[in-house]
Amino acid sequence: MTTPNPYRTTESQPPSATTPSTAQDHIATILSQNASWAQYTYSTDPTLFPSLSAGQSPKILWIGCCDSRVPETTILGLKPGDVFVHRNIANIVSPTDLNALSAIEYAVVYLKVERIYLCGHTSCGGVVAALANKKLGKIDTWLVPLRQLRMKHAAELEGLGDAEKGKKLVELNVAHGVEMLRQNADVLQAVEERGLTVHGLVYNLQSGRLYTVDVDEERHVHEKRKEAFEVSG
Amino acid sequence: MTTPNPYRTTESQPPSATTPSTAQDHIATILSQNASWAQYTYSTDPTLFPSLSAGQSPKILWIGCCDSRVPETTILGLKPGDVFVHRNIANIVSPTDLNALSAIEYAVVYLKVERIYLCGHTSCGGVVAALANKKLGKIDTWLVPLRQLRMKHAAELEGLGDAEKGKKLVELNVAHGVEMLRQNADVLQAVEERGLTVHGLVYNLQSGRLYTVDVDEERHVHEKRKEAFEVSG
Amino acid sequence: MTTPNPYRTTESQPPSATTPSTAQDHIATILSQNASWAQYTYSTDPTLFPSLSAGQSPKILWIGCCDSRVPETTILGLKPGDVFVHRNIANIVSPTDLNALSAIEYAVVYLKVERIYLCGHTSCGGVVAALANKKLGKIDTWLVPLRQLRMKHAAELEGLGDAEKGKKLVELNVAHGVEMLRQNADVLQAVEERGLTVHGLVYNLQSGRLYTVDVDEERHVHEKRKEAFEVSG
Amino acid sequence: MTTPNPYRTTESQPPSATTPSTAQDHIATILSQNASWAQYTYSTDPTLFPSLSAGQSPKILWIGCCDSRVPETTILGLKPGDVFVHRNIANIVSPTDLNALSAIEYAVVYLKVERIYLCGHTSCGGVVAALANKKLGKIDTWLVPLRQLRMKHAAELEGLGDAEKGKKLVELNVAHGVEMLRQNADVLQAVEERGLTVHGLVYNLQSGRLYTVDVDEERHVHEKRKEAFEVSG
Repeated sequence: MTTPNPYRTTESQPPSATTPSTAQDHIATILSQNASWAQYTYSTDPTLFPSLSAGQSPKILWIGCCDSRVPETTILGLKPGDVFVHRNIANIVSPTDLNALSAIEYAVVYLKVERIYLCGHTSCGGVVAALANKKLGKIDTWLVPLRQLRMKHAAELEGLGDAEKGKKLVELNVAHGVEMLRQNADVLQAVEERGLTVHGLVYNLQSGRLYTVDVDEERHVHEKRKEAFEVSG
Repeated sequence: MTTPNPYRTTESQPPSATTPSTAQDHIATILSQNASWAQYTYSTDPTLFPSLSAGQSPKILWIGCCDSRVPETTILGLKPGDVFVHRNIANIVSPTDLNALSAIEYAVVYLKVERIYLCGHTSCGGVVAALANKKLGKIDTWLVPLRQLRMKHAAELEGLGDAEKGKKLVELNVAHGVEMLRQNADVLQAVEERGLTVHGLVYNLQSGRLYTVDVDEERHVHEKRKEAFEVSG
Repeated sequence: MTTPNPYRTTESQPPSATTPSTAQDHIATILSQNASWAQYTYSTDPTLFPSLSAGQSPKILWIGCCDSRVPETTILGLKPGDVFVHRNIANIVSPTDLNALSAIEYAVVYLKVERIYLCGHTSCGGVVAALANKKLGKIDTWLVPLRQLRMKHAAELEGLGDAEKGKKLVELNVAHGVEMLRQNADVLQAVEERGLTVHGLVYNLQSGRLYTVDVDEERHVHEKRKEAFEVSG
Repeated sequence: MTTPNPYRTTESQPPSATTPSTAQDHIATILSQNASWAQYTYSTDPTLFPSLSAGQSPKILWIGCCDSRVPETTILGLKPGDVFVHRNIANIVSPTDLNALSAIEYAVVYLKVERIYLCGHTSCGGVVAALANKKLGKIDTWLVPLRQLRMKHAAELEGLGDAEKGKKLVELNVAHGVEMLRQNADVLQAVEERGLTVHGLVYNLQSGRLYTVDVDEERHVHEKRKEAFEVSG
């Protein structure tokens, strides 16, 4: 018995007839740009695609913002295969968010990345939204952790101008996210067993430069955290 | 009263003394590579950073896999500012996942992107995991939608070898995700009101090439969908 | 060093001075009603509290609606200790919802309940909402699985009057939820290993009576499901 | 065209032939107990079912634990129709958990309940799990908020014996949950506009008695919270 195939795949065919023609043009452009990139990449590094198709072994897990201006592999000057990536609105690490947690587990437990970089950026729309009180929708719920930081650090934020306030909350969010990551049971175990490290970064849109946001900590903080968060066999 | 600042930021300082020296080296390398990229980018396109720091207006929302080998901006031959991005394990669109839903809402309702590309890729680790029955952890829960597709299309998948089976499930997952996106109330409204389109893509790791996976549909399917999923005013 | 205690507990004290007096009256009433119940219960069954304080061993996991009119223990004529309970809007079983999944795991894997009852009810507000297209908020996202059922069964639902349509979708939702439960890896294993069973029920608000909604299935369906969903050590 | 109906409903028929006979007996018992309850209830209060089938207007939202020993309507000495209920493992209020948030939104915005009671209980299995470090599964992720409280209040908990430690964490969890509820945008608005109040309770399994856990607060705390969490039109 043959059932009619409900979808079809095309390496060469034109896109679906049900999509409007401007969309078709757009897909054609996208496919053509990708083809140019693939051809150029192959010509300059003929071993890359064969090597990547054998498997990935990235050393870095990057957790960053969805923002179009912060494509991690590009701004790090790196290549396909180098960075395992989870990107969400305002690079939030929520301890019960299965989406991010699965990415972290896969990267840390199975790919055994060596570093986690949590990266925020200046002029973050999510941060701006969390500093305003306008109703946006589902995003408002997603951004609650930023509002909690806003309330916790109200005194620090109060005197600042809008731009400085935004930058400060971006940094507070990264510092908080680093702590959330260090509390994660998979991360905690990898820190213990094989020296995984977690780092905070901020990308400055004006300069194209990254800078570090590190939470200083004494050894005993790690021990205290381990006591509360470790789960094992 | 001054409280000691629990975190510190450094554009020029060395990374935290509490991170091991190999980690410090790694951060130094990362920062230095980024600096080279920023300098080169500025020299070849001096208007890019000033322009991007004024705001983002990407035309594309990309929903892709965390896999290190599929950095969207790179493989599309595009630049910072061009693609708004959510990446999760196996590019799954779960209709009640607040993480992805917030990215979609922000891109569709507020940035008003014109196209959504949902992109899978060959040799996807998440798909391989969903085709096996080994317990991995939180990921198993995240991958349940892939297992549902596996069961639903068991007859189609049955005869195939491992590689073909994997490729087929990658395509089924993209086709299913496109349907999930089209059912999303924010997407539905933007399709109606301003011609937003949603497309499925697969990236072939061996060739570096994208190909389309489109769900053909008649107008009446959209109408039926609209009836069930539209929520308004 | 003593830090002032930020909260206080009172078995006998009046409620917080910061709550309005009508709220205080309400709490007083609630506490007094509970005290009467406790006293009466103790007088009729002096062994109940000592026995329950030693531990719980319920045989039933109940997944039901938040609706105030369907308090499971009451309508089943049962006592404290008999039914382990998760209640959410419209008794939806979403395969990636950590809240419900944790309740299921705890009940099935650790308490080893013998039966799962998934119970819907007539005149369900969530179902009514999913059959309308009015924007309500976060609930709209939560109810997407009901909208998917609405679309899938559009033909069946079409001819019916509002009340019949609601009742049909309540039943479809229960049948679908039973399938989602049977696909759950923890449930699947307990079905295999110790004969756990999963049942669908609907509570009729007009009669106060439960009726069953069972998905008939041959053994091979279970096998097919097991193939796709089993994960193990 | 008639498609065979994949599910069937039975008010009088025996349960599905595919369920084992002990399960059939169990369902029969459940249905029979419910029938007795319904008949008794009707005989003592003939207006209850007709009145409830016209709609619900509970004044209370109860957020409690799944634990079988804490059936809210029973221990409050209340009737069907009195309490709208969400129950999850360890009565945790996670600010980005769509399941609980939808219940809260429905109760607060649409049913306009007057009081929210968040209720923990002594000897809570979830709390015990969070005080141990044994790996349990998905529950470990769900319980992360309890581990955060455990770490934050490590000094307070340290000296205590197991039972006292558990009771203290139960109370800390309730106090924290009350704060999470008060930060919720729907709750915040209802507090402002119509005097909704939020209260913490603990149920003592040994006595069957509830006691209050209230977070004292001055008016300015509410104002500060409002500033950070309010979202509106």
